[in-house]
Amino acid sequence: MTPSTQDKKLWGGRFAEATDGLVELFNASVGFDQRLAEQDIRGSLAHVVMLGQVGILTSEEVAQISDGLGAVLADIRAGTFEWRLDREDVHMNVEAALRDRIGPVAGKLHTARSRNDQVAVDFRLFTKEAALDLAEKTRSLRAVMLAEAEKHLADEVILPGYTHLQVAQPILLAHWFMAYVAMLERDEGRLRDAAARMDESPLGSSALAGTPWPIDRHATAAALGFARPTANSLDGVGSRDFALEFLSACAILSAHLSRLSEELIVYSTFEFGFLTLPDSHTTGSSIMPQKKNPDVSELARAKAGRVFGNLMGLLTVVKGTPLAYNKDLQEDKEGVFDSYDTLSIVLRLYTEMLPRTVWHADVTRAAAARGYSTATDVADFLARQGVPFREAHEVVGGLVGLASRSGRQLWDLSDEELRAAHPLLTGEVAQALTVEQSVRARQSFGGTAPDRVREAIGQAREALTHEALG
Amino acid sequence: MTPSTQDKKLWGGRFAEATDGLVELFNASVGFDQRLAEQDIRGSLAHVVMLGQVGILTSEEVAQISDGLGAVLADIRAGTFEWRLDREDVHMNVEAALRDRIGPVAGKLHTARSRNDQVAVDFRLFTKEAALDLAEKTRSLRAVMLAEAEKHLADEVILPGYTHLQVAQPILLAHWFMAYVAMLERDEGRLRDAAARMDESPLGSSALAGTPWPIDRHATAAALGFARPTANSLDGVGSRDFALEFLSACAILSAHLSRLSEELIVYSTFEFGFLTLPDSHTTGSSIMPQKKNPDVSELARAKAGRVFGNLMGLLTVVKGTPLAYNKDLQEDKEGVFDSYDTLSIVLRLYTEMLPRTVWHADVTRAAAARGYSTATDVADFLARQGVPFREAHEVVGGLVGLASRSGRQLWDLSDEELRAAHPLLTGEVAQALTVEQSVRARQSFGGTAPDRVREAIGQAREALTHEALG
Amino acid sequence: MTPSTQDKKLWGGRFAEATDGLVELFNASVGFDQRLAEQDIRGSLAHVVMLGQVGILTSEEVAQISDGLGAVLADIRAGTFEWRLDREDVHMNVEAALRDRIGPVAGKLHTARSRNDQVAVDFRLFTKEAALDLAEKTRSLRAVMLAEAEKHLADEVILPGYTHLQVAQPILLAHWFMAYVAMLERDEGRLRDAAARMDESPLGSSALAGTPWPIDRHATAAALGFARPTANSLDGVGSRDFALEFLSACAILSAHLSRLSEELIVYSTFEFGFLTLPDSHTTGSSIMPQKKNPDVSELARAKAGRVFGNLMGLLTVVKGTPLAYNKDLQEDKEGVFDSYDTLSIVLRLYTEMLPRTVWHADVTRAAAARGYSTATDVADFLARQGVPFREAHEVVGGLVGLASRSGRQLWDLSDEELRAAHPLLTGEVAQALTVEQSVRARQSFGGTAPDRVREAIGQAREALTHEALG
Amino acid sequence: MTPSTQDKKLWGGRFAEATDGLVELFNASVGFDQRLAEQDIRGSLAHVVMLGQVGILTSEEVAQISDGLGAVLADIRAGTFEWRLDREDVHMNVEAALRDRIGPVAGKLHTARSRNDQVAVDFRLFTKEAALDLAEKTRSLRAVMLAEAEKHLADEVILPGYTHLQVAQPILLAHWFMAYVAMLERDEGRLRDAAARMDESPLGSSALAGTPWPIDRHATAAALGFARPTANSLDGVGSRDFALEFLSACAILSAHLSRLSEELIVYSTFEFGFLTLPDSHTTGSSIMPQKKNPDVSELARAKAGRVFGNLMGLLTVVKGTPLAYNKDLQEDKEGVFDSYDTLSIVLRLYTEMLPRTVWHADVTRAAAARGYSTATDVADFLARQGVPFREAHEVVGGLVGLASRSGRQLWDLSDEELRAAHPLLTGEVAQALTVEQSVRARQSFGGTAPDRVREAIGQAREALTHEALG
Repeated sequence: MTPSTQDKKLWGGRFAEATDGLVELFNASVGFDQRLAEQDIRGSLAHVVMLGQVGILTSEEVAQISDGLGAVLADIRAGTFEWRLDREDVHMNVEAALRDRIGPVAGKLHTARSRNDQVAVDFRLFTKEAALDLAEKTRSLRAVMLAEAEKHLADEVILPGYTHLQVAQPILLAHWFMAYVAMLERDEGRLRDAAARMDESPLGSSALAGTPWPIDRHATAAALGFARPTANSLDGVGSRDFALEFLSACAILSAHLSRLSEELIVYSTFEFGFLTLPDSHTTGSSIMPQKKNPDVSELARAKAGRVFGNLMGLLTVVKGTPLAYNKDLQEDKEGVFDSYDTLSIVLRLYTEMLPRTVWHADVTRAAAARGYSTATDVADFLARQGVPFREAHEVVGGLVGLASRSGRQLWDLSDEELRAAHPLLTGEVAQALTVEQSVRARQSFGGTAPDRVREAIGQAREALTHEALG
Repeated sequence: MTPSTQDKKLWGGRFAEATDGLVELFNASVGFDQRLAEQDIRGSLAHVVMLGQVGILTSEEVAQISDGLGAVLADIRAGTFEWRLDREDVHMNVEAALRDRIGPVAGKLHTARSRNDQVAVDFRLFTKEAALDLAEKTRSLRAVMLAEAEKHLADEVILPGYTHLQVAQPILLAHWFMAYVAMLERDEGRLRDAAARMDESPLGSSALAGTPWPIDRHATAAALGFARPTANSLDGVGSRDFALEFLSACAILSAHLSRLSEELIVYSTFEFGFLTLPDSHTTGSSIMPQKKNPDVSELARAKAGRVFGNLMGLLTVVKGTPLAYNKDLQEDKEGVFDSYDTLSIVLRLYTEMLPRTVWHADVTRAAAARGYSTATDVADFLARQGVPFREAHEVVGGLVGLASRSGRQLWDLSDEELRAAHPLLTGEVAQALTVEQSVRARQSFGGTAPDRVREAIGQAREALTHEALG
Repeated sequence: MTPSTQDKKLWGGRFAEATDGLVELFNASVGFDQRLAEQDIRGSLAHVVMLGQVGILTSEEVAQISDGLGAVLADIRAGTFEWRLDREDVHMNVEAALRDRIGPVAGKLHTARSRNDQVAVDFRLFTKEAALDLAEKTRSLRAVMLAEAEKHLADEVILPGYTHLQVAQPILLAHWFMAYVAMLERDEGRLRDAAARMDESPLGSSALAGTPWPIDRHATAAALGFARPTANSLDGVGSRDFALEFLSACAILSAHLSRLSEELIVYSTFEFGFLTLPDSHTTGSSIMPQKKNPDVSELARAKAGRVFGNLMGLLTVVKGTPLAYNKDLQEDKEGVFDSYDTLSIVLRLYTEMLPRTVWHADVTRAAAARGYSTATDVADFLARQGVPFREAHEVVGGLVGLASRSGRQLWDLSDEELRAAHPLLTGEVAQALTVEQSVRARQSFGGTAPDRVREAIGQAREALTHEALG
Repeated sequence: MTPSTQDKKLWGGRFAEATDGLVELFNASVGFDQRLAEQDIRGSLAHVVMLGQVGILTSEEVAQISDGLGAVLADIRAGTFEWRLDREDVHMNVEAALRDRIGPVAGKLHTARSRNDQVAVDFRLFTKEAALDLAEKTRSLRAVMLAEAEKHLADEVILPGYTHLQVAQPILLAHWFMAYVAMLERDEGRLRDAAARMDESPLGSSALAGTPWPIDRHATAAALGFARPTANSLDGVGSRDFALEFLSACAILSAHLSRLSEELIVYSTFEFGFLTLPDSHTTGSSIMPQKKNPDVSELARAKAGRVFGNLMGLLTVVKGTPLAYNKDLQEDKEGVFDSYDTLSIVLRLYTEMLPRTVWHADVTRAAAARGYSTATDVADFLARQGVPFREAHEVVGGLVGLASRSGRQLWDLSDEELRAAHPLLTGEVAQALTVEQSVRARQSFGGTAPDRVREAIGQAREALTHEALG
């Protein structure tokens, strides 16, 4: 590349030798940071308007530059903008295009500003908006799962409750949905906390130390919708904990979605047979015509890896770097973009897919009755009559062993066998043995009894509505 | 091991075969979860008192069990408690010791409770307290750095401001300290947000589905200092996002401390010579008698790896596990303990070390003047006279090249050379070239000018005081 | 602590101020590196003998020091050695104990040596031995899985082959075992390659630059069982890629074991019911007497997190550290110890557990017949008669849809229905529909046909025997 | 999208409902796996030729399909191929394009093959070639560093050797280069070991269980340049340890390059001033005209994060997934592509940049003399006269303290001061105090004495030549 005068590197004044082509390729970030074009131009507009307000630029200059930026933005939106690698990054591409369009006055835009605070403000705007958008999408999924809980509560659909993936106790399917509602509520909280903590404008930090120009950082912060300007210029250009906090919230959310995915994959096997995923959200096999694969859930499970990797990557980048800005920080963006895109689509897919998923209540009920799932109820029956719980537990353990060895369920045991195990075990215990009775009995706060789940749904519904208003 | 009657596994009723010795070793968590003994006994005391209040236990039983637990706790604190591997975990060790002490009535303690909610409440108590304690320690370090900023502001100590580890612009040392104050303030915020979000008691979730016993979860939550009980029992026993959020906050804090460490290591080299670390916080070499090694900072930098690893470890554990409890979750504790211990000591060491670190103001001032660090001020000088910034930048770039090729500083250039570069470059520019003038000029909000730093210190001081009261 | 003369820091000559107590605690590694005591003393013995051989020490000195070291080692093995935190690390503890025992001549041991090369050689010895030991344990598990394959091949036990956890095609259980045999073979290879690459002695690199003493590094390398000395002293003391390579091999092995664990957990559910884990390797529930939890597999699955975290931790530590030795490197050991211990026990447990696991051949065969698992065979039947595979695939897809909608299996379809789907579908196709026929048909190399699996077992058996001899 | 008959999903036979658009987007991998197009077509060509050889296809069919594939490949290379998202992945795109071109006979290509083994073979071909290519590039960098070592050995350029980033002992710059030569040699070994271990063809594993068609897997393996076919079909389609091993080798190599980068960044500061990076490989600042930023090294240091993240990501993906193929595995490719591209460019840049980097021998020599760097030599001087090393060490420590407190170097101490410290310290010691003497004295194998470094270079040169031939 033979750079023309107007295209030579903007920092090229003291350099005797041209940048190596491969270096240019390596350094250039325009391949990914062009995604920040909207934010970049919003930032420049806020900056130039402020420069006019404080008298650094004339109103004519402000108008020229603003109009020029508007035209550049229009080109970008129209897809007609030519992104050039030799112009390194989104900032230089936009500024050079502005210069092509309005001439040397474009050079005044960069007064009292540095690429360091420019990229900091662009990226912060993006990340804040990404956090808020994922918070909204998390809420949408929460609303859908809440609606599913309501639907399945109405039918008292029963699901085996698992620990160690072994049937433990019968629960309501609605209760299962509400567990995810609780997780997603916290996930949303983390995203919103992250957005609030990063709600500060670094613009005006300049290269690292502030600027001698009489700029008004509160004005640009307000114009860009930030709560306030950052309080320290080194921190403003050099910190990336906002991106790390965003990625952490994404990683935890991904972990939750991977758990949901695992359950859906297991529950949709032939062997479990608890649910049928919609044809629209599954795929087939090129060689096995009978397959109906839970691809969405498999990918959603796997995508956790990508998001964890993005977090690990940026933590590594930041580790051990001195203040203030280092080129290392250019590595901050792709992981944020990728995590945002990944979770956006996974959240949307589950929001669409769950209401179309069919649960087979007969299968889940039958499964919930297997595996001596109401044995605890028998132990509780004894304990309520004064038998120390540990002793009751042991008695019932023996009964389960007895039944299991002879291929029977607990309700198949004879009165003699029951009494032999413990004198207090009478026929009355039988009523503790149905899954419905077991579920209804769990009346403790947060428990799976229908009344409790109804209450929980009511409160969750209220929280959702209240937040939407608040 | 031949288990005696009273020591056979509490869940052993249905098992025909003894647990394999190696399995026992593998499964046992008492090696590390004995650290939760205080929390475990607090949880048991709250539970047993509540069982009395709701009439499940008699007041005599409550008294017997409470007294017994108190005696066990006393043994543990005295270091006379015998932790037994064959009793698996802290819960079983405590309960078995209670039984040894008060007999079969001990078995009633576990009424309406499961190890799943017991460990969930123990671990949550620990993690919440750990988060709050690290928040306090982060605040202490913040206070110390703020005091350092005040001290060095008084002397207007000047430091080179770096980007790319190249001298960029002179700044105040106080300004540098305030950058870390800002980071630590956010770190503390993350820890407190995490503590607030996890401030829910899972006790009473029982194994996974709640319990038929008429327990009062609000009472136990209150007794244990939690804001409220968790709203869903599956979530209560099966979620570990509270630990992940704690570890994320720790990881980001570690990243910040690794940056500080890197700077201290670099600044204390012979070549930089900016500061002398206290003898009390450095070590020597077994073979090179002259060495004074910044071991504390090196270890603090490296410890980020440990904390990042702990976070990655638990994210991996949680990935793809179905609800509710899985044995996998036993792997949640060690990383939290380790991260807490690691950051506790690093924060304390820096809190002690920084006030005893001696900065060499003459060296830092001289370094700040090197490297054409005030070149931007010359560009600003031109830009203020109407030269578009980009053009001014290029003019000064040429001057730096000229000076650099002839081994001179900018202030060594002759008036002719200056004018040749640009007609507006007059002798007046010289005053822009001192580091003091450069620093004082950066009056923008958040900038390094002494007045701005004074303001920032005032606000940070106020925030610190206000929070301490609030 | 008031250090006595002989206990003051060995590097304390130039220090005016004592080390801070907390710093001492922070810096001290003896809490974990005492595990290297055997390696440390072996290294010292090799060093002192060599010092004698080259004439730096007299034979009397060598004898005194060697005897002293032997006595210290005996104390350590007997558990009577007092490890002291104020003596920092294993090296200083051993050397100080030697001095306590034999007086000032002990000081000659450290001639021509530094703690930097001392720790490098100790840790390399440990890691090499750990790699070889895990390789052996991996081989033992491989041998056990091979034996299982042989056993189940004899009975032609059939298992559903899964993709996407959906029944895909019937396979032999023996074939499933052989898949893990193949993975473990590569895992062992990685461990052995790592051991071979690290088989170099850094002893004699001294602090970083070598030593003026006329030492014989080849002699110490040979005495310690290393293939050769390291070729560059900076690299010898400053590199930790050997530990990273070990951890990488551990992480990949952990990933494989987590896959095996997941399958065993899923296959041992009530719903799958494919196998029964031995009582000796499962545990029960404190509240649900019927539970038989696959704890070993759950923990083994989760332990992958710990090992991944250890790898990420050390990668982070090494990132961006300058040559040669930095205190950061002290953080290299715990992750290696922990990964070694973790995998040692998991490998041993699976080696014990798998032969005692009972597979239910009737259940697995029935499951393998479900889900239209032989549909591909019908497509192949058509393709063999010249129908392009893609068309055949589509025809069978339609049949599966037809059967599925009416709750039938493929073999329930009438001749009319078959012919309506494709004229070439005759009654003859029925023989392609049994799982046995499907399995036997897959005669391609590496396929699941009994003959192929027999061949594969034969070759694997030979490889195992051959390696053991080689 | 309204799929035309020929474009409907190839697995769509049994599906009543079309795939949701967002699902299609989510599932589609063609956005990234089109990079495997060459490998995919090579795999298909090998497969179709073999199908002809064994008589499954006629020679006419083979010719038609081969010619068609050749034409498709030509389109792809010419950039005229239309990649379609609705055709999901590279395999389906290529096959559909083939069908568009040659009609229904294209459907025969997929006989005895599945997408599972197709993607496995494509990706393995790519990863093997990537590993070998990075091995070559690593060797090129090694050759360049070796040449630098030779160049600087000729001038006996002296560098301070650091531990803890504190000047420790003088070394040769050539010795420093040779440390990296040693690291890179092992890095290359890891990449080649990984390539050798993955040198197996999974083609013919079919979906998971092999195929009833009489295919010849050894023939396709040979045609594709693999050493052999994989021995187990489940393993062939379901394992990704080859990618994990590649990523591990990349991560360790990245860690080494991050260390080199850190050193170059620190050495090129104003304060160290050891070297000048070429203008062609540095960049400037948009606001600070004097800056010459070591961007390449900063980015190279940061890129370690990306590669570590890719490794962590894939480890997470694989964790806990059952055999054989799961859609999760689709997440295996991007991290491999990205790590390969990243290291390719970093290796090339350093290969270009290092020979153009200018070292300032006067500055490094002066720095090497600072900081009492030859104090160890004085201790060795005493020890050689029989003073136990530990005592000698302490004596010299005291001298360093004395000199340091009075702002002097060791050679500034008077004879009286020396003798007061130890009677054996005579004027003769002065010759031990020059950096040249110190360097020349370190004659131990692997040490920094010029003769030793010359030897090491000779051996490394031989190894490099030998390998290139071998």
